[in-house]
Amino acid sequence: MIFIGERINTGFKEVKAAVLAHDASVIKEWAVKQTKAKATYLDVNLGAASAKVEDLCWMIEQVQSASELPISIDTNKYPMLKEAVPLCKKPPLINSTPAIDSKMKEIFPLVAEYGCSIIGLVMDEAGSPKTTEKRVEIGGQILATAMEYGIPPDHVFLDPIVMPMKYMQDQAKIILAAASQFQLFSDPPPHVVCGLSNVSNGAIHKKLINRTFAVMMAASGMDAVILDVTDEELVNALITADLVMNRSIYADSYLEAFRS
Amino acid sequence: MIFIGERINTGFKEVKAAVLAHDASVIKEWAVKQTKAKATYLDVNLGAASAKVEDLCWMIEQVQSASELPISIDTNKYPMLKEAVPLCKKPPLINSTPAIDSKMKEIFPLVAEYGCSIIGLVMDEAGSPKTTEKRVEIGGQILATAMEYGIPPDHVFLDPIVMPMKYMQDQAKIILAAASQFQLFSDPPPHVVCGLSNVSNGAIHKKLINRTFAVMMAASGMDAVILDVTDEELVNALITADLVMNRSIYADSYLEAFRS
Repeated sequence: MIFIGERINTGFKEVKAAVLAHDASVIKEWAVKQTKAKATYLDVNLGAASAKVEDLCWMIEQVQSASELPISIDTNKYPMLKEAVPLCKKPPLINSTPAIDSKMKEIFPLVAEYGCSIIGLVMDEAGSPKTTEKRVEIGGQILATAMEYGIPPDHVFLDPIVMPMKYMQDQAKIILAAASQFQLFSDPPPHVVCGLSNVSNGAIHKKLINRTFAVMMAASGMDAVILDVTDEELVNALITADLVMNRSIYADSYLEAFRS
Repeated sequence: MIFIGERINTGFKEVKAAVLAHDASVIKEWAVKQTKAKATYLDVNLGAASAKVEDLCWMIEQVQSASELPISIDTNKYPMLKEAVPLCKKPPLINSTPAIDSKMKEIFPLVAEYGCSIIGLVMDEAGSPKTTEKRVEIGGQILATAMEYGIPPDHVFLDPIVMPMKYMQDQAKIILAAASQFQLFSDPPPHVVCGLSNVSNGAIHKKLINRTFAVMMAASGMDAVILDVTDEELVNALITADLVMNRSIYADSYLEAFRS
């Protein structure tokens, strides 16, 4: 499972304050904490805290000074990406583009040039689809377009867009079905990813819902997830799901081995 | 989710001793405990503790004196079933038959006559299959044969036969795929069930493996499970999986509602 650590995001107050004050300690602390928790990528999200590309670049530099992990650059703004991507010591994951031609046309050449990976959100000009069929159709468009730009399928992460179960319960099952079908697109198939926490938006039993849905997504082929990688029970469940999917080799002490 | 409580089984020492001594208290205690934990059926398994049909009948009577729940009769011996089924106050689940003609020919008329449900194990004279395709083929045979005897598909529970991940890791994913395909057989589809605990046989992290695999099976269409219904975390995960599959309606306090 590819774990994309979500915590360096100005949606969190302390991170926002640290970015505005250029106080590196908070950023580095979360970089180290998520690295120790065995993240694969560290997501860096400037959000609405600032419109200055320098602030995003500063964040990335702080993260890279504290961790060897590759970055997930959480923006779809081309001017930001153009500056940020070349700063990355390892090919970053770009999070994300919708299936909108003008966006893909801007971002995909950069993805191809730098050997980046890209998260493709299955939404288009009409917004986020409600059916399995439409999600699969849009997912296919993103993958086909990426391949036209020379981006290999295993650099494409399709995100079926998780909806809050509290408000749109019927979508959960539809999303599982879409994820299953994404794997039929190509060989090797694209990755399947989701931003997990949205599923429990507004819920009381958030961690249980996150963990259960994540494991069900893993059964449907999800092999990457944007998550709180410091949620140990969640990570344990996903490592176990990897064993079930035969993606890692069983050992009695597999949890201990993962963390050692 | 249909929860089949596994605890009244002479595989457990205290249950075996209670059956041999005809000490009803242990049996009744487990009947009450599993009923409170919201089992749907109570499995009653005489196992190898005794060859006397009277002992099985005695167990069923004790359970029925302590709980209103229907019984799952855990034997494939026709002489036992012939005596035990008419004793049941509610149509029981018969656990189980393999896809062996001589067995099905004996048991299915009884299932049809008494409106029972039946667990069909996807194994035949050659034993337990190793591939998805063979599991699906055998599952289809069981369902088709049941229908010939007038047993409706929703009285048939197909069990793809869970293997221990420690010894046969590659089987877990194959079993998920078979479960998915069972649902394409008919409309309404047959139930999909499994004896869960076998997946963690010999493992250290038994509960985590049981819980994770169970939720992945639920994502693949499993709607019934033979389990330790007093394992609260396991049941919570499966109730949550039912929400994801849109089988029950979301409420913020869905766990509390289930147990009230």
